[in-house]
Amino acid sequence: MDVPLTLEGCRELDRRDPLAGLREKFALPESGNIHFDANSMGAMPADAPDRTTRLLTDCWRNKGRRCWATEDWMEKPRILGASIAHMLGADSGDVIVCDNTTVNLFKAISYAWKRRGSGNAILTETHNFPTDLHVAQGFLRLLQDLGAEGAVRTAENRSQLLDMLDRDVAILYLTQTDYRSSERWNIQEVNACARAVDALTVWDLSHSAGALDIDLSGADFAVGCGYKYLCGGPGGPAFLFINPAHQGAAWPAIAGWMGHAKRDAFLPEFEPAAGIAGHLTGTPQVVANEVFSAAADIWRDADRRTVAAKHRSLTETLIALLDAECGALGVAVTSPRDYAERGGHVSFSHPGGGPVCEALADCGLVSSFRRPDSIRFGMSPLYHSHEDVWRAVQTVKNVLASERWRAPEYRNVSI
Amino acid sequence: MDVPLTLEGCRELDRRDPLAGLREKFALPESGNIHFDANSMGAMPADAPDRTTRLLTDCWRNKGRRCWATEDWMEKPRILGASIAHMLGADSGDVIVCDNTTVNLFKAISYAWKRRGSGNAILTETHNFPTDLHVAQGFLRLLQDLGAEGAVRTAENRSQLLDMLDRDVAILYLTQTDYRSSERWNIQEVNACARAVDALTVWDLSHSAGALDIDLSGADFAVGCGYKYLCGGPGGPAFLFINPAHQGAAWPAIAGWMGHAKRDAFLPEFEPAAGIAGHLTGTPQVVANEVFSAAADIWRDADRRTVAAKHRSLTETLIALLDAECGALGVAVTSPRDYAERGGHVSFSHPGGGPVCEALADCGLVSSFRRPDSIRFGMSPLYHSHEDVWRAVQTVKNVLASERWRAPEYRNVSI
Repeated sequence: MDVPLTLEGCRELDRRDPLAGLREKFALPESGNIHFDANSMGAMPADAPDRTTRLLTDCWRNKGRRCWATEDWMEKPRILGASIAHMLGADSGDVIVCDNTTVNLFKAISYAWKRRGSGNAILTETHNFPTDLHVAQGFLRLLQDLGAEGAVRTAENRSQLLDMLDRDVAILYLTQTDYRSSERWNIQEVNACARAVDALTVWDLSHSAGALDIDLSGADFAVGCGYKYLCGGPGGPAFLFINPAHQGAAWPAIAGWMGHAKRDAFLPEFEPAAGIAGHLTGTPQVVANEVFSAAADIWRDADRRTVAAKHRSLTETLIALLDAECGALGVAVTSPRDYAERGGHVSFSHPGGGPVCEALADCGLVSSFRRPDSIRFGMSPLYHSHEDVWRAVQTVKNVLASERWRAPEYRNVSI
Repeated sequence: MDVPLTLEGCRELDRRDPLAGLREKFALPESGNIHFDANSMGAMPADAPDRTTRLLTDCWRNKGRRCWATEDWMEKPRILGASIAHMLGADSGDVIVCDNTTVNLFKAISYAWKRRGSGNAILTETHNFPTDLHVAQGFLRLLQDLGAEGAVRTAENRSQLLDMLDRDVAILYLTQTDYRSSERWNIQEVNACARAVDALTVWDLSHSAGALDIDLSGADFAVGCGYKYLCGGPGGPAFLFINPAHQGAAWPAIAGWMGHAKRDAFLPEFEPAAGIAGHLTGTPQVVANEVFSAAADIWRDADRRTVAAKHRSLTETLIALLDAECGALGVAVTSPRDYAERGGHVSFSHPGGGPVCEALADCGLVSSFRRPDSIRFGMSPLYHSHEDVWRAVQTVKNVLASERWRAPEYRNVSI
């Protein structure tokens, strides 16, 4: 990929960017700061406050409980799921937006366990995101407490994991993009490996969805965060994908009235709704769903490959500029340089670690840090420009060249 | 209790109401309509829109991911729990606000199962709220799918339930206030009966919390809706209470990073946080929690017994006025007349059923209907007045006397 090393080159790419018009749909920071934190909290769609206020006032205040009948509140988990499904390479009816990532991971793991073949272990990585590991450990403990058998096995690295993938594995449980290094699994290849040993796949797409070209057609289950690249709002609901082959084949572990086949009939006996709707739990998060709707209206019209191509262009430009402008200042890009192996964000190390990240933020460039040494830049193909990348790298250069991060106020930064 | 049958008598009670000043903390419907739907969706605290907009703009837009460090977002589930705990007769550290009611019911049931004595059945009522029954059925199915044993037993009525409460019962699983009739269980008495057979109690307080004088000191687990009498906002998070005797004694079934003992260390091995915090799952619902905070600020200063006394006064006034003014028009109060046996709302039947409820709403009085014949008035001790009760009963009288509910537009109302 041909990437520019000049401001003018970046501006030229922006002029040719088919997604450039989307930037105005977001309210970027009033300070003019650059937030490369889409891997942590995507930006706010501009109309989120107005539509939230309208919901609170026109609906909650003025109509009260009548809204359950007049508004689409009950349908929102499916409407929102349908609006982002194409970004996951999934059919619109196979995704719902609900609960949080942890709860959806539990739903996916517990359901996958019911659908497993002959294997009896969950295989994952030691370096998976903590909540993913905890959900597996919690489910294993539940099995043990109920007198059932099972195991959680963890691999130290990717090649060891593929070695450990044998017929004892019931569920292969991976996060596509490593939250520190941004290493990316090839979903299609891994699905094929899992199928070969009769294992089901559960993917966490939190650090991928909304940035990468994802194709879930051969995956069994997927879960992901709604408030990172998807811009669904802080602490907003997460998404859950279930392959149609599994939908309706068993009961969900958490059976609730929103997942009932005849929801409005208030029947005492549970009967799961057809399709993925059976995996809804309780009352939808009405206010949070309205916030998410502001982003969903943008995603609905987005083309997955165009989004991924823009994301690739931004990240390759960033890496080239970091190498050229900051390499001599101690910056070492640690994310894979091969695009096919790189996930949503770009990580680099610098001996200054956390203090560098904080100093950058104080100088107008918000990123995030994860121990031991990942300064992470998460750029959104919806609202970031190549000029942003150029400006950001200038900020990195200035902070490092001036050694600003050595100032006393950063001495106690440990994160 | 001496209740007034005149407008002036109602106004006199309002003049003496120690909670009268709270009404101005709410934004009641701009139409001037009366919403007796606190059992379904409590009113909006007046500052909810402003503080939500502030969070969206000042935090999400302008600070992005830095808010996780600068705001109390991570602590909100405990802060909100502490703000309502006294309303449940619980200590401030024993309640968290998180997830939805269904998910919290699953968490309570699955955890209670781990903590059970010799029994192996969940005992509940056929007339329990649907989602409560579904959660028990879903958990039973999970047990069966894992090869474990268990049973769900349902009683047709309250005396049968007490007969069925024997040493085979692991968990006694009840909703304190019946969502249709408003019959109320005496929590203390039932807890004692359960303890006598070594059964644990799981209470659903959705139709009680924020209206009744609740004392959870002898209860094992409790869960409830946050958006009814508690006014936490449509689809807002629910609450979970766990008796300190159980906290930390086992792992939660859904183990997630927010429940980790060292949350910020991102450790791969789960270790439940001490106390009830171990039962948090994933990322808190930041926006919904801010909405809930508007109500929490009101609850924090409320006295439980004063609130319950006001609620009693409102409901007794309503019943007396309905009897006096509408009895001859076909209204029959179906909720218990003995206050000690009555829960949050007051139900009455009328041959017109659902169409009456809808006609009342069109005439400025919003209530709710549940088949087969419960027109439910849910009044809030925080923002309703005795004069509201008087006006509401006049509306009922006028709609029934004019037979307005027989108009063609209500002919197809089935709910």
